[in-house]
Amino acid sequence: MIPYSQMTKEQLAAEKESLLASYNEFKARNLSLDMSRGKPGKVQLDLVNDMMNVLGADSDYKAENGFDVRNYGLLDGIPEAKKLFADLLEVEPKNVIVGGNSSLNMMYDAIARAMCFGVLGGKKPWGKQKKIKFLCPAPGYDRHFAICELFGIEMITIKMNSDGPDMDTIEKLVSKDASIKGIWCVPVYSNPDGITYSDEVVKRFANLSPKAKDFRIFWDNAYCVHHLTGEDKVLNIIDECAKTGKPDMVFEFASTSKISYPGAGVAVMIASEDNINATKKQLGIQTIGSDKINQLRHVRYFKSVDGIKEHMKKLADTITPKFEVVLSKLDSEIRPLEIADWQTPNGGYFISLNTFPECAKRVVALCKEAGVVLTGAGATFPYGKDPEDKNIRIAPTFPPVEELQMAMELFCICVKLASVEKLLG
Amino acid sequence: MIPYSQMTKEQLAAEKESLLASYNEFKARNLSLDMSRGKPGKVQLDLVNDMMNVLGADSDYKAENGFDVRNYGLLDGIPEAKKLFADLLEVEPKNVIVGGNSSLNMMYDAIARAMCFGVLGGKKPWGKQKKIKFLCPAPGYDRHFAICELFGIEMITIKMNSDGPDMDTIEKLVSKDASIKGIWCVPVYSNPDGITYSDEVVKRFANLSPKAKDFRIFWDNAYCVHHLTGEDKVLNIIDECAKTGKPDMVFEFASTSKISYPGAGVAVMIASEDNINATKKQLGIQTIGSDKINQLRHVRYFKSVDGIKEHMKKLADTITPKFEVVLSKLDSEIRPLEIADWQTPNGGYFISLNTFPECAKRVVALCKEAGVVLTGAGATFPYGKDPEDKNIRIAPTFPPVEELQMAMELFCICVKLASVEKLLG
Repeated sequence: MIPYSQMTKEQLAAEKESLLASYNEFKARNLSLDMSRGKPGKVQLDLVNDMMNVLGADSDYKAENGFDVRNYGLLDGIPEAKKLFADLLEVEPKNVIVGGNSSLNMMYDAIARAMCFGVLGGKKPWGKQKKIKFLCPAPGYDRHFAICELFGIEMITIKMNSDGPDMDTIEKLVSKDASIKGIWCVPVYSNPDGITYSDEVVKRFANLSPKAKDFRIFWDNAYCVHHLTGEDKVLNIIDECAKTGKPDMVFEFASTSKISYPGAGVAVMIASEDNINATKKQLGIQTIGSDKINQLRHVRYFKSVDGIKEHMKKLADTITPKFEVVLSKLDSEIRPLEIADWQTPNGGYFISLNTFPECAKRVVALCKEAGVVLTGAGATFPYGKDPEDKNIRIAPTFPPVEELQMAMELFCICVKLASVEKLLG
Repeated sequence: MIPYSQMTKEQLAAEKESLLASYNEFKARNLSLDMSRGKPGKVQLDLVNDMMNVLGADSDYKAENGFDVRNYGLLDGIPEAKKLFADLLEVEPKNVIVGGNSSLNMMYDAIARAMCFGVLGGKKPWGKQKKIKFLCPAPGYDRHFAICELFGIEMITIKMNSDGPDMDTIEKLVSKDASIKGIWCVPVYSNPDGITYSDEVVKRFANLSPKAKDFRIFWDNAYCVHHLTGEDKVLNIIDECAKTGKPDMVFEFASTSKISYPGAGVAVMIASEDNINATKKQLGIQTIGSDKINQLRHVRYFKSVDGIKEHMKKLADTITPKFEVVLSKLDSEIRPLEIADWQTPNGGYFISLNTFPECAKRVVALCKEAGVVLTGAGATFPYGKDPEDKNIRIAPTFPPVEELQMAMELFCICVKLASVEKLLG
């Protein structure tokens, strides 16, 4: 194999013919595979099924403070759940609100509250200010961007470097523009790059001096313990912000969606005690409390952070082979051709691949036509628009390994085909 | 016993002395009883514990459409849960969004979305319009009013009649004031009066011609199957609004909070298909879906509306004696004195009592001092201000019968004492 850039027109045309033949063979197979979302596979879900036996008809439904978890109350969660998540995120229980099944929901609600009522220390609701902007490191998580779009928050794309977002630009922008109210971060095994922020990046975040006094870092720590081949660790943003005297500048979020059940896990919001108290005042109008039976079920099953970590190792055993399928296919099929580059993350849920410019949409369309659904090209950028049309998010967790192998074969053919088409002009 | 109004000053003074003696005896007992909220008691919660055995490690976690309920997806709920709630509320599954554990949360979110984005058919978000007002039949549910207060929605108190809110006033107000965007209703066993809206009232609701094109009736059907001594039935507001050609004018809500678990039930929003579709578009940005394992658990446990109704009979067996304690105490201790009046509801969670004007706060304070916490006086009115200071909400479900008996004895003493004080001036 020689790099496509070194091929003659004739060689490229011949390659195209051959690729088309392979592609059409795939199409004839009538595949129907979904790699569009970061969904755990069935094997992963089965690994946690014993949790469903933890509580039964004869169980004691008392939290450790004697509260009957079946009844109304305990807005911010049962004490032992607050403790478990505090241990997991290395904060104090007073920094934790335990919510329902979705950290996305908690993030959306935090934005909605900021829009309607403002945040602690802010003079006005965000929604009553002229224009509101968010910084969006990209490629990033499409659902973060969708929240901004729904609320009419203008998004400014920030470049992702190999150690986190481009802090030079962030520092410059937030210090001079009071309409910039927040930034979306996935600090560990970022979605989709799988990058973990360096200590320097975190420290620079904690040192930000935003012109907006009601600025918040949205720290979506979705993959904090989702290790695969390595064990990345990020500095504790709550501690770092406390050290710089800016404890209220960050809202952190996490959940067990990819630890226990995507549809029925437990989510948390982490923040300074003052932020938590201000949030609880508003949250208490929205709900009397989240599902505490499910909180108790989680605590009694996992018992401790060690219990969670043990479980994550079992999950890694099922996910790592899938990442290996993707990476080894890319290594053998794509790397020698020099037509794309990608990250090799130590954990998380995604592999992020960059094609030649103006090829990503074509690759996704080709895959779709042959029965493999990928995340839409562009989805990893604000407004769904990848300026160079080159980023593709690969989500390998959902399909079983055999299906994934097939899907990746097709994927590589499509990347090659789109690249050849591009070079042939 | 003769009515207090017929007593001489001397008789009243003697009565006061005697009441104070009884009151002080109670104080000496150091009671600590909570009748402040409509909380189910432990016996009620235990009645549903078998639900916790319905799903276990070896269960099939497939919804009837084959979807794995443990995973992400199904924004509006699993099909069988949509069906069960559609049957319960006598609508179609397409009219149902199954949510998380709290209908209060769904109502709050509906208001928040209306404030931020507007409702179907509206030209502007409520929050971008100059002034927003809600009609609040009162006495009513304090948590409804708290939502309005948080969002800065001006509340207009509407008188409650024995067949529902005062429709004459409602029709007049909504037809001329475009800033009136909604009304709170608890149509069956209303909180706190226990009144069920008459057919005429419901038809007049469905016939409203609000000046605001983005007006919504918030129909909180919290107690639709919560029968005790009777079986009140309200006309189906979704049908009635469809008949009058105003299908989008109503949002209905319900939950199993007082059927299964207050802290871990399942809530629903019911509306026209167009409303549901418009809502889902926004809801899909907030969450990927609610806890579907808990939905499946509920469906497999109750099986059908008949299953729910059977269960409600068992609950009624535990609640009815508590209502009887309250009502018989009031009948024997208070009625002959002609110092208060109250409703005798066929179901629901509350008994609403009206004292002489300017006595409710005093009664609640006296009770509290002697160790019995009632819902704050005034809580049943907008802004927590009962204009006549006479309404008290009695919530008899939480304490066991023996404790309730004691609490009611004290309560009657306090009502008498406050009345005597009032008459003595």
